[in-house]
Amino acid sequence: MTDTAFLSSILSPDRVSTTTADRDHHGRDWGTPPEEAAPPDVVVWPESTAEVSAVLAAATERDIPVTPFAAGTGIEGNAVPVRGGISLDLTRMDTVLEVRPEDAQIDVEPGVVGAAVDEAVAAHGLFFPPLPTSADMATVGGMIATNASGKRTVKYGEVGDWVREVEVVLADGSVLTAGTRAAKSSSGYNIRDLIVGSEGTLGVVTRATLALAGRPEQTRVGRVTFSTLADATDAAADIVGSGVDVSAVELVDALSARMVNAYIDADLPERPTLFLEFQADHGVDEEVDFCRAVLAAHDPTTVVLGEEAAGEDVWEPRRELADAVRAYYPDRRSLHAGDVAVPLGSFSTLLERIRALSERHDIPIPTFGHAGDGNVHFDVLVDPTDDDAVDTAERVYDDIVTTGIDLGGTASGEHGIGRGKRGFLRTEHGDTGVRAMEAIKDALDPTGTLNPGKIFP
Amino acid sequence: MTDTAFLSSILSPDRVSTTTADRDHHGRDWGTPPEEAAPPDVVVWPESTAEVSAVLAAATERDIPVTPFAAGTGIEGNAVPVRGGISLDLTRMDTVLEVRPEDAQIDVEPGVVGAAVDEAVAAHGLFFPPLPTSADMATVGGMIATNASGKRTVKYGEVGDWVREVEVVLADGSVLTAGTRAAKSSSGYNIRDLIVGSEGTLGVVTRATLALAGRPEQTRVGRVTFSTLADATDAAADIVGSGVDVSAVELVDALSARMVNAYIDADLPERPTLFLEFQADHGVDEEVDFCRAVLAAHDPTTVVLGEEAAGEDVWEPRRELADAVRAYYPDRRSLHAGDVAVPLGSFSTLLERIRALSERHDIPIPTFGHAGDGNVHFDVLVDPTDDDAVDTAERVYDDIVTTGIDLGGTASGEHGIGRGKRGFLRTEHGDTGVRAMEAIKDALDPTGTLNPGKIFP
Repeated sequence: MTDTAFLSSILSPDRVSTTTADRDHHGRDWGTPPEEAAPPDVVVWPESTAEVSAVLAAATERDIPVTPFAAGTGIEGNAVPVRGGISLDLTRMDTVLEVRPEDAQIDVEPGVVGAAVDEAVAAHGLFFPPLPTSADMATVGGMIATNASGKRTVKYGEVGDWVREVEVVLADGSVLTAGTRAAKSSSGYNIRDLIVGSEGTLGVVTRATLALAGRPEQTRVGRVTFSTLADATDAAADIVGSGVDVSAVELVDALSARMVNAYIDADLPERPTLFLEFQADHGVDEEVDFCRAVLAAHDPTTVVLGEEAAGEDVWEPRRELADAVRAYYPDRRSLHAGDVAVPLGSFSTLLERIRALSERHDIPIPTFGHAGDGNVHFDVLVDPTDDDAVDTAERVYDDIVTTGIDLGGTASGEHGIGRGKRGFLRTEHGDTGVRAMEAIKDALDPTGTLNPGKIFP
Repeated sequence: MTDTAFLSSILSPDRVSTTTADRDHHGRDWGTPPEEAAPPDVVVWPESTAEVSAVLAAATERDIPVTPFAAGTGIEGNAVPVRGGISLDLTRMDTVLEVRPEDAQIDVEPGVVGAAVDEAVAAHGLFFPPLPTSADMATVGGMIATNASGKRTVKYGEVGDWVREVEVVLADGSVLTAGTRAAKSSSGYNIRDLIVGSEGTLGVVTRATLALAGRPEQTRVGRVTFSTLADATDAAADIVGSGVDVSAVELVDALSARMVNAYIDADLPERPTLFLEFQADHGVDEEVDFCRAVLAAHDPTTVVLGEEAAGEDVWEPRRELADAVRAYYPDRRSLHAGDVAVPLGSFSTLLERIRALSERHDIPIPTFGHAGDGNVHFDVLVDPTDDDAVDTAERVYDDIVTTGIDLGGTASGEHGIGRGKRGFLRTEHGDTGVRAMEAIKDALDPTGTLNPGKIFP
């Protein structure tokens, strides 16, 4: 048990807690099954960079682990303090510091929720494009820590592509500013992009300058269904490869469609379906027509697009999917709900292999996600009380992730490695790659204070 | 003098040279004045990753510096071997390894020239968007080392934004692959983007997978002249801020226009001028019209855009500019021809300050460059035999770069720090930032073998 008196001398005592409720809340995330919860010894809520710095310096001196935490919406245990110690809750650092429309930039504290960024800039005709689906809850700090992304990443890129500058507190309490507010830079090592995606293991982001895009004047949506999964994935690749200016290309497979229909009493065709969105200042209908021509080569069975989709909430099923999956099999749990991303030309192959694994082992695996990025989300659904089935499902899960890596892809498209995918780091990056990462960790956090037990095998 | 016998046991002897001609060629770049040339002791031309690895391992063992070199088109002395040792010339590793149109990717060796990337993929309807102006000569390896960019960066981003995966040889000879061929990733530390822009000080890129974009079907160009510099820079910011889909917004100031007119006998109005390019698959003329409306608020004196510009090579003056500057004052030399980038909203301020410095000290400073990125190129022109004038010019140059940093920008938008801008690294990144960079350097190249004397103050 950590002696926490030193924390109450840094922060006001009401911002230091060892209650069971607070510790439990900080011991899990969206992806943590009950038996893997790992509460911290103490939770603290700093309100400034100086307080974060003081906590880190004191913890490093005392060799106490510190794990940053905010909304807890991760799914790989990224913010779960597996070695105990201090959970550094950043949700009280939730101020929008400045909007600079002339630079198309915003400065925020890390606890600002994604949706609040959009709200703060909407009046200026701007928006923050890479928001994840969880943006109503997920914080900027967490999005940066995992290099999150969302449905519009196919057009606009990842969160990391929109981070201009970060203020970061290192484990020893020193504070650095990485990146620049200029749109481009070739000045020294790119520490900013090293911090992005490092899951709080190298430093704690205490302020971020984000770039913004002009809010497009026109939006069109659509939903296109296919007979086969291969038709749907080929169509997704063709849409992107043909240069259609599309702002979202999301796949929902037949099983996922069935789950959604059951959950919201919808009448989605129970076949592979692409959800599409187009955004532009001009010519959006020309773009929809161009997309329609591309789609025609892939034998769609139903096309609801542009004009036809107006007035209908065609995207509702996609939004409800995560909840629908959880509700469909009350006796099964998603084993490591995960994501894998591959080069676009291999997306069909990946989906086919997942389906083959599902059929061979008779395990339901709904697949859905960001088809335009070659990024699939999947749930390996299994009865957690059936040990043999769990063993098989574990192997299937490993097979899927390894297949993604073998296809030239990555073990995680947008959720990070956390503790859940540590076993794949070496498979993807090799001994030399992992050694280089370890050397960087040692260089910036020699005492291993920050978020221990994550990322590394 | 380095004992080079060990090199001839690694490479065939015809690929190891100590001739004066070879050493001189590798002792300078485009930005090196004669008195700052620094020839290596020996030049080697490896032809494979294995050979690069063997050279690096042997050099590290012997404590001999190794400086990667290719086209020598840098302007900050990035590839000049200031501590002697080995110049590692990568121009023989110039094979296009594979084009994968289904992934919109190409694999190349580092010595492949930028323009050759475009040539290799044109038949597939693809192109590599961030090529710099020097792409006819500059190599992919050099572009990655400096995180280069070009006129289309305003729409498409920097070279680093298009690098998917790099094979890198570290100083000890070990080989790692950083990044992924997937379009997105949250898997471990982003070593790829750490290598990008590290100027060969952390590792040597021996293979790169680059992403490609669809070659747009429609292109329109134009040239717009203004009475005042403020009108031109405000217009540039407004074009970008209004979300015009523009693929290039380049500024040429009045002095630069005069230089170009003298050089190519053109009749460019000798006032601040924006060069514009629009590229799209659809609706490009609508976009030109939208831009025309945005421009109208900034009192342009001459607008040659879209239809009016058809058939005329309106961009020729911009292309000839670098040579025109060199030719205009035969008795003056550009002191540290350089670039600085600032947030878009501060671009006007930066340009006004440069003009004020020029007038106050009576030193001609032509300014031009990527106005849409807030990135200016400038030449502080001075008689190199006049010591007092050189001193003043040095101070003016320092003032310009420091002003850029003070405005929230960066000491280098696209050329790197090299040896020329080491003095600004601490100004921009602070003590903690520089210390973090040094720690990373020590972590990946503990013997300091790679390109010593660069980047760090």
